[in-house]
Amino acid sequence: MIPVLPDGPPAGAGLGAFVPGPRLIVDGAPDGPLAGLSFAAKDLFDVAGHVTGCGNPDWAASHAAAATTAAAVRCLLAAGARLVGKTVTDEISLGLLGRNRHVGAPVNPRAPDRYTGGSSSGSAAAVAAGLVPIALGSDSGGSMRVPASFCGIYGLRPTHGAISVDGLMVQAPSFDTAGFFAAAPEAFARVGDVLLPRGEPGTVDEVLVADDAFARADAVVRETLRPAVDRVAAVVGGSRSIGLADEGLDVWNRHHVHLQHPEFAATFAPWVDAVDPRLSFDVAAAIATARLLPEAPRRAAQLFRTEVRARVDALLNGRRILCLPTTPILPPRRDLTLAQTATVGQRLVDLTCIAGMTGLPQVSLPLAEVRGLPVGLSLIGWRGGDRALLELARRMGGGP
Amino acid sequence: MIPVLPDGPPAGAGLGAFVPGPRLIVDGAPDGPLAGLSFAAKDLFDVAGHVTGCGNPDWAASHAAAATTAAAVRCLLAAGARLVGKTVTDEISLGLLGRNRHVGAPVNPRAPDRYTGGSSSGSAAAVAAGLVPIALGSDSGGSMRVPASFCGIYGLRPTHGAISVDGLMVQAPSFDTAGFFAAAPEAFARVGDVLLPRGEPGTVDEVLVADDAFARADAVVRETLRPAVDRVAAVVGGSRSIGLADEGLDVWNRHHVHLQHPEFAATFAPWVDAVDPRLSFDVAAAIATARLLPEAPRRAAQLFRTEVRARVDALLNGRRILCLPTTPILPPRRDLTLAQTATVGQRLVDLTCIAGMTGLPQVSLPLAEVRGLPVGLSLIGWRGGDRALLELARRMGGGP
Repeated sequence: MIPVLPDGPPAGAGLGAFVPGPRLIVDGAPDGPLAGLSFAAKDLFDVAGHVTGCGNPDWAASHAAAATTAAAVRCLLAAGARLVGKTVTDEISLGLLGRNRHVGAPVNPRAPDRYTGGSSSGSAAAVAAGLVPIALGSDSGGSMRVPASFCGIYGLRPTHGAISVDGLMVQAPSFDTAGFFAAAPEAFARVGDVLLPRGEPGTVDEVLVADDAFARADAVVRETLRPAVDRVAAVVGGSRSIGLADEGLDVWNRHHVHLQHPEFAATFAPWVDAVDPRLSFDVAAAIATARLLPEAPRRAAQLFRTEVRARVDALLNGRRILCLPTTPILPPRRDLTLAQTATVGQRLVDLTCIAGMTGLPQVSLPLAEVRGLPVGLSLIGWRGGDRALLELARRMGGGP
Repeated sequence: MIPVLPDGPPAGAGLGAFVPGPRLIVDGAPDGPLAGLSFAAKDLFDVAGHVTGCGNPDWAASHAAAATTAAAVRCLLAAGARLVGKTVTDEISLGLLGRNRHVGAPVNPRAPDRYTGGSSSGSAAAVAAGLVPIALGSDSGGSMRVPASFCGIYGLRPTHGAISVDGLMVQAPSFDTAGFFAAAPEAFARVGDVLLPRGEPGTVDEVLVADDAFARADAVVRETLRPAVDRVAAVVGGSRSIGLADEGLDVWNRHHVHLQHPEFAATFAPWVDAVDPRLSFDVAAAIATARLLPEAPRRAAQLFRTEVRARVDALLNGRRILCLPTTPILPPRRDLTLAQTATVGQRLVDLTCIAGMTGLPQVSLPLAEVRGLPVGLSLIGWRGGDRALLELARRMGGGP
């Protein structure tokens, strides 16, 4: 067997952030709060008259052009921003590393030998490379937060339901969110002001540092984030350490799998059955094995989700936020084997499942780096507290 | 979603029996017992200097050209036959219908709206279309017998180990066999004479009609095969009905899955891990779910295999052969959904697992048809009784 690097970017694709082919460009309204800003959109968002590719050529070949434009795209266009391209996504959004076997993995501008994170890989790469100041992505299991951390940019996974997912490819409806990246905290807040429900940001009164979440991280991540945690605590003016999950975050992760995986397996079943798509092994395996998950643990997971939502809502009630590493690891090298990437994916979900299970908003902030590699710090806000997180990010200012 | 027919033949590929691209042609020895015959070989057999594609483009891209030519191909060339092309196979031999999402499913010359059967789909189609009089294929779980039946040609799965699998892609070593198709019984016997171990064919003394195997077949198959069974009984001069599997052939099938599937999952694991190949959903799912099979039923299946081998060896000892339908169904329509093909595949294995579990030789003979569709009758011989089966096929003569 000849060893091949499975997912280097295709020749001539530059950073590989945008989907191959002509750029999809749509002018925005002549003026508005985002006038003069250009943006990219993950190729899971519909744009009227164009096929949404969703990172898989058989998906593209089996779907008609979208009749209408996704709500989040319409919203940015109406605010004066200009769409300058669709970006690469992990196949049908199932991936956290930023791999795509069909078009190649986008290059991480901050670390060319490392993955960008995914599945909003191209949007993160485009923002990190300075090709666009802002970009739309989506997050069901970590797809905004992981690439924000690995690429050293700002990313929001909003409160579940706070930003419309109308016109966004459905993956697992009870987890799906539409989010956005920005290179700078000012643009991050401006986009949020347009996309999020009206409301005052409100102030954060206390930072709860999730010790158990930090304990899950590699020592290098934990140590690298320490000054950033101190900065957040100083800006907020109050902090304390807590244990978030007495039962262990691996228990959260397991329940998360039993909820999210059957949902996406059900979502994709009619397409898989009708089209018999060519898929990367890991993507097909995720769907195939989800079909085998028994029903009983799923019901237990539903009860668990109800319980932890109430528990964390009570914890954050009173304008408190959780502080944790976005990811427990540094951006992974691109030469991992498939088996290694599976292990990496499981570790990532240990932390991303917190906002996933609770439906709470989470920002990843590019406040640290080590050996030139970005390390994101995450803040999880109270339900509907998205604007408070963006305002806090703005007050923190840029840079590690 | 736009419905697409997933696996129509690619435009310009004619019957789609041969792999796309220039034909691989190798002249045979100037004379020999097969002089003047041309043959095709399933693209799982190595030919020195050429990449063996195995039905998947990422397999082809990740493997070097073969250094040597497969033993069975060498044997036919040395006997004077001429190789005139490599034929399409189901991806990495995992399929019984003759589907290939990458290059299209070969057309069944006898029923263009029906599958050829697989995984030796292109070899069967080429023989059935008269493009070649003989062709090499392989059979681990039914890949010679099913396409022989669906395409109305002669096919042999030999006694396990009787024909060298050297230079044939490994799937599940304890099941893998190299076999051959022929359009006519004379060529069928001539090829066997070249490929099989030396020996006298010997005569068959009694036909044991496997009532439980017939009971598994659709009524139309059962009824259509009745005159052919009578013909075999008349030629042999003695027959009686038996129940082969008191425990039920579904139990054989289940044990078969627990043996074959972990074997092929182990075979393909290093390649999958290194290359992250793009696979059809069902192929990836077969590998992924095989990895989840527990160890205990596998050990039980190994004991079961030992027991049924001894049991059927004792049954056939004394020059007896088993008679059964090759497949329980007529050739399936090409417009089946993926979910429907999974059900079809399971039914096929109810009958193909008999020779698979016992390692005994089986021929499928094109002795019946209904509404223009071929229906194969199968004979399973004693261990090493391959030549006796070919000789009986020759004595039976051609045609339904």
